[in-house]
Amino acid sequence: MNTIITIGRQYGSGGREIGRKLADSYGIPFYDKELLKIAAKESGICEEMFEDYDEKPTTSFLYSLVMDPYSFGFHGGSFEIPLSQKVFLAAFDAIRKIAGQGPFVIVGRCADYALKDLDNTFNLFIQAPFAFKHDRIRDEYHIPEEKIRNHAEHVDKQRASYYNYYTSRKWGDATTYDLCLDSSYLGIDGTVELIRQAVALKEGSLWNNQDQ
Amino acid sequence: MNTIITIGRQYGSGGREIGRKLADSYGIPFYDKELLKIAAKESGICEEMFEDYDEKPTTSFLYSLVMDPYSFGFHGGSFEIPLSQKVFLAAFDAIRKIAGQGPFVIVGRCADYALKDLDNTFNLFIQAPFAFKHDRIRDEYHIPEEKIRNHAEHVDKQRASYYNYYTSRKWGDATTYDLCLDSSYLGIDGTVELIRQAVALKEGSLWNNQDQ
Repeated sequence: MNTIITIGRQYGSGGREIGRKLADSYGIPFYDKELLKIAAKESGICEEMFEDYDEKPTTSFLYSLVMDPYSFGFHGGSFEIPLSQKVFLAAFDAIRKIAGQGPFVIVGRCADYALKDLDNTFNLFIQAPFAFKHDRIRDEYHIPEEKIRNHAEHVDKQRASYYNYYTSRKWGDATTYDLCLDSSYLGIDGTVELIRQAVALKEGSLWNNQDQ
Repeated sequence: MNTIITIGRQYGSGGREIGRKLADSYGIPFYDKELLKIAAKESGICEEMFEDYDEKPTTSFLYSLVMDPYSFGFHGGSFEIPLSQKVFLAAFDAIRKIAGQGPFVIVGRCADYALKDLDNTFNLFIQAPFAFKHDRIRDEYHIPEEKIRNHAEHVDKQRASYYNYYTSRKWGDATTYDLCLDSSYLGIDGTVELIRQAVALKEGSLWNNQDQ
């Protein structure tokens, strides 16, 4: 197995659980928040900054200038890019670096875009109807019942703005991904199984082509 | 096999070929333009009308009133809905009627929406990068090289407006479908095989649940 699997996902859709189960089934690394630690270590930027900016939309240039004193500044006459973008670029570098070490599964962080020049990526998007996400969000994140819908919409909006800002693609649009799945259709384990079958078909056809 | 497969697709992505191969592999009916014949026969509206309005965006109310003399009118004091919408509704009825006769594969025509109350549908969207579609469009539809990109964009725009007008969903958005596939990732036959495996997983899990 030599495929790097990237997963974009709606909040509550089970994308992370699917990613972890995929990685476990192949015995390869899984990166979600783990990536932030690596990016912090590699870049020297403190880890809290990565958590603060993680998959949150960057503010506009003017907003940064006025409202966000530590993200932006002129120092000794030289212009600095906003911290939010430095943090993004450090995460980007970390993703590319781990891609040199073999296959893995990664969730979010525009990883599909960071790795767009590789030919062994498999880019997925996981979504689900609200009723399915609702129960998962209630049970896993313990969000109060009355706040679940707004919270889910808010997180997805942040993920979409973050993704759309940093890439030239559209989050959640079918054309952005190799495969998009409604995780409620086959359930979490059925979805994992279908993705494994897709990887097997892809790697099988590559071997067949090499044989010819 | 008891699943009705509906396929939305970008122009040139191979959605129709995938649909036909799926139907052939299961020995079930395949409907693309064939649906229009059935809808014409059932409704008594002449078949050419179905072809004229097939997956094309309806014009707005005011535009119909001014520009489209035969689609719209007051007759004997009674108000008539535009012909474009009558034709859509007749196609809708035809789709629902064939759904009572067993599984099939259907391409386009908002079939997923027409059948949204059934629980044995599997709603797919097929797309592909432009380079893949380009070669298929050149070879299959014989569109002159310099017109391929504009023509493909135009047809997809029409399909999107038609779909978005008649349904409460968004054409090409991952959340609209159970499964979206980039047909260039596994190729046409690999994509057919993956869809067959998804159907097998779904029907297998349904049997398992019934056994419990």
